Amino acid sequence: MITTSKGIAPSVESASAPSRRATRTGLEVRLAARPDGLPALGDFDLAEVAVPDPAPGQVLVRNLFMSLDPGMLMLMTGESGLPMPRYEIGEVMYGDAVGEVVASGDPSLSEGDLVVHRMGWREYALAPAGAYRRVDKGAYPTPSTHLGFGLVAYVGLMDAARLRPGDTVFVSSAAGATGSMAGQIARLKGAARVIGSAGSPAKVAHLTGKLGFDAAFDYHDGPVADWLREAAPDGIDVYFDNVGGEQLRAAIEVMNVHGRIAVCGALNRQRTARPDDGPGDLLAVLGKRLTIRGFTLGDHLERAAEFGPQFRAWLRDGAIVYEETVIDGLAEAPRTLLDLVGGAYTGKTVVRIAS
Amino acid sequence: MITTSKGIAPSVESASAPSRRATRTGLEVRLAARPDGLPALGDFDLAEVAVPDPAPGQVLVRNLFMSLDPGMLMLMTGESGLPMPRYEIGEVMYGDAVGEVVASGDPSLSEGDLVVHRMGWREYALAPAGAYRRVDKGAYPTPSTHLGFGLVAYVGLMDAARLRPGDTVFVSSAAGATGSMAGQIARLKGAARVIGSAGSPAKVAHLTGKLGFDAAFDYHDGPVADWLREAAPDGIDVYFDNVGGEQLRAAIEVMNVHGRIAVCGALNRQRTARPDDGPGDLLAVLGKRLTIRGFTLGDHLERAAEFGPQFRAWLRDGAIVYEETVIDGLAEAPRTLLDLVGGAYTGKTVVRIAS
Repeated sequence: MITTSKGIAPSVESASAPSRRATRTGLEVRLAARPDGLPALGDFDLAEVAVPDPAPGQVLVRNLFMSLDPGMLMLMTGESGLPMPRYEIGEVMYGDAVGEVVASGDPSLSEGDLVVHRMGWREYALAPAGAYRRVDKGAYPTPSTHLGFGLVAYVGLMDAARLRPGDTVFVSSAAGATGSMAGQIARLKGAARVIGSAGSPAKVAHLTGKLGFDAAFDYHDGPVADWLREAAPDGIDVYFDNVGGEQLRAAIEVMNVHGRIAVCGALNRQRTARPDDGPGDLLAVLGKRLTIRGFTLGDHLERAAEFGPQFRAWLRDGAIVYEETVIDGLAEAPRTLLDLVGGAYTGKTVVRIAS
Repeated sequence: MITTSKGIAPSVESASAPSRRATRTGLEVRLAARPDGLPALGDFDLAEVAVPDPAPGQVLVRNLFMSLDPGMLMLMTGESGLPMPRYEIGEVMYGDAVGEVVASGDPSLSEGDLVVHRMGWREYALAPAGAYRRVDKGAYPTPSTHLGFGLVAYVGLMDAARLRPGDTVFVSSAAGATGSMAGQIARLKGAARVIGSAGSPAKVAHLTGKLGFDAAFDYHDGPVADWLREAAPDGIDVYFDNVGGEQLRAAIEVMNVHGRIAVCGALNRQRTARPDDGPGDLLAVLGKRLTIRGFTLGDHLERAAEFGPQFRAWLRDGAIVYEETVIDGLAEAPRTLLDLVGGAYTGKTVVRIAS
């Protein structure tokens, strides 16, 4: 159990996979207990396990970076609704990671290949080759950029919100990994005005100062609808929703006819487990002919081919600010996840597992 | 003021339009008082007014039938949200009507033409020619069919819900003017299974007996989600929502991944003025990637050209049951509207103003 920021010495256990000659050991983080509400460090367990060599068809990957994402809290609490399995007690957790193939039992991947996959929260991933997707080692200066949420934001804007040139766009949790991408990409794809909300004065300043938002506000500072009316006197056409709850209701209030809402996340629910955080006013949905659409990246992966080159060009030209907070060491991941949910970071948060 | 089912003798007043030689008088119904909640007969006022001849560019129409529609309650209470002006105290009310041109000051319309327009609640309509739309006198056995909500249902299914062959479709208020069309048209356009809810055992029997629904239930009889799970064991793909509130929340609960909700009405809100009748669970909207879309007919009038011939063929072939309740006399319209909102009728309710 991890009880300090450095963690305690993990016990060595044998892996549950059929025993083959284990030439390595690796750390992994397991769910120790199911939290009731916000998790604590005691809900995580760090263990060292033996890592077998890959069987035929399998590939062994040494993870370099893993992504941290507030949605992981809901996989811990097990609240239903998300289209993915919850974490199970005693089992290693999962999440996006990027790593390097160290041994391959399958001809489709070779030692040294860079791959992204869903087996974060561990130093070594061992799985059939089909669980990995090879990526271009030269695409970005650091492999962690492969974990970015730019594509999620792009899909939300283009497919769920059907962004049109000239739209006024509101993004909640705009200083976060997805929100910071959504606001900047909306502008790059033709939005006339981009408004963001965040949870601290420093983040608000960051939105208008560094990320180029036209207006921003702290959602703690009074009624969100009032802020929106001031920031968008002509109304909002698109709302990129990362939180739900009051911000969603306020956005609906200030939305123009034929407005579109892309539901990307429910941070409000993740933090407070409110049973009702959806849009309250059906009359407004009807009267203004609004569209509210939930989306996940998995339904729109075909967008990757068009997004990648655009994103790399934006990065190269300095047209987009891609921020990353890098925390070192898998043992630090649990504390970092709690800090992330507490609002400690802007941009993308990753854990460097190996370099 | 109308205080009995027969009304009292209306007073004769002069019309507010610029005085021309008045050759006729006609009855009209005005909003007498703004109701707080459900209206009563005392909130309506019946008056007889002088009807001037049309000025150049104007057309005088004798109304034959007017439509009654529960949404009229919200125009009486003035609750915001709908994209149309509320009724004003002392002013004649408005609504869909079909009538015959009796005098025309414009070359685009001639005496005897059949037209639909928005100036119901009066015996004679006088307006510029552009306020009327000429319709085919031979299209239906009775001109009242021009007031049907088939096109509304069609647009909701095709444009808002993006109905696909094989879908399981749930329709609330399914015995009503729009709902009865939505359920039958869904089946005719390829739905595999159609489920309806209504507010009485007689209506439920009517849905499965006469209208061909596969399953139906009375929404008063226990949790709607339980009924839906039983009626749609494989889940719901499309929900045609006429009511909001509990039925909307239940539909979301039982909805399949990529389900689509067409928000057509908010009867629940109209009856109870609940401040929150929208979808409660944002996580389900996100996790199941649902689309919730409000729509009104006005945004999709181009569908009329393709719908009309299909609808007439369905009627001719007996493929669709089009039911109408006809109440005689404009003086009966207020009481009929209150009865309609109280759930007295199935299908479309119209008032015959003249024959």
